[in-house]
Amino acid sequence: MVEKKQMPLLVVEDSDEDFEVLQLLMEEMNVSQPIHRCKTGDNVLDLLYDKTAAAEDPPIRPAVILLDLNLPGTDGREVLEQLKQDESFSTNPIIVFTTSEDPKDIKFCYQKGANGYFIKPVSPEKLERHVHAFVSYWLQVNTLPEWDEVNLIP
Amino acid sequence: MVEKKQMPLLVVEDSDEDFEVLQLLMEEMNVSQPIHRCKTGDNVLDLLYDKTAAAEDPPIRPAVILLDLNLPGTDGREVLEQLKQDESFSTNPIIVFTTSEDPKDIKFCYQKGANGYFIKPVSPEKLERHVHAFVSYWLQVNTLPEWDEVNLIP
Repeated sequence: MVEKKQMPLLVVEDSDEDFEVLQLLMEEMNVSQPIHRCKTGDNVLDLLYDKTAAAEDPPIRPAVILLDLNLPGTDGREVLEQLKQDESFSTNPIIVFTTSEDPKDIKFCYQKGANGYFIKPVSPEKLERHVHAFVSYWLQVNTLPEWDEVNLIP
Repeated sequence: MVEKKQMPLLVVEDSDEDFEVLQLLMEEMNVSQPIHRCKTGDNVLDLLYDKTAAAEDPPIRPAVILLDLNLPGTDGREVLEQLKQDESFSTNPIIVFTTSEDPKDIKFCYQKGANGYFIKPVSPEKLERHVHAFVSYWLQVNTLPEWDEVNLIP
């Protein structure tokens, strides 16, 4: 079995600036998991449903998916809906990380099975505190389901 | 609209000792939400589906439900399944908090829609760190869906 600690955090974020800030904060917090980034919803689906992989290959599983909602092409809402409806991915925690404070988005995401929803704060101090709380809970304390065999994201 | 900060944390825990330790840790962490406790699964269902309430009364909504699995009578697995299947409660975050490290329990809970799963550590230092991470993320950073009108737990 692959050690859960080694399973990557998958960050779905189209903004280079937002991703770099997040990455920097996580480095400062000594996050041990590798961080993999997808810039679009389509990239996530291509990665997880790797069409080039042989049928007998073990599936790719991130420890947690941190999902922005507003993405070019297939957006975060569609990615969430598709993964949570698919038995192979439904137990994979997906945390929405967005600037959207729209109550309709919040309700929609929980209805579709998002495990959590957190809003990107504008203030750098608040962002640091929020990312710290995310890392402490989701990457250090929360227990994930076991998968006998998984591929790490290359 | 009722301020989300005032919405209670609902702890479902049959062990007096475990509840008291949790309550003490949360007091030390200055948790601002009221903490309501149910000792059994049946108590939770009675509270949330208040049969004595008038039909026009707004529903009772905890901010987060921290749910032990092994409970006398209706156990935590059944409570989780029932609430997550009910449209009125499905968006309410439920975090499993248990001593069970059984992979079947972990998988079952995610399949049934648990928002998170964390295992009660035996070491007091680790428990403190874990409860701190739970409080920081779930009670301070995570955003909940809005409900126009809710009853606070009496």
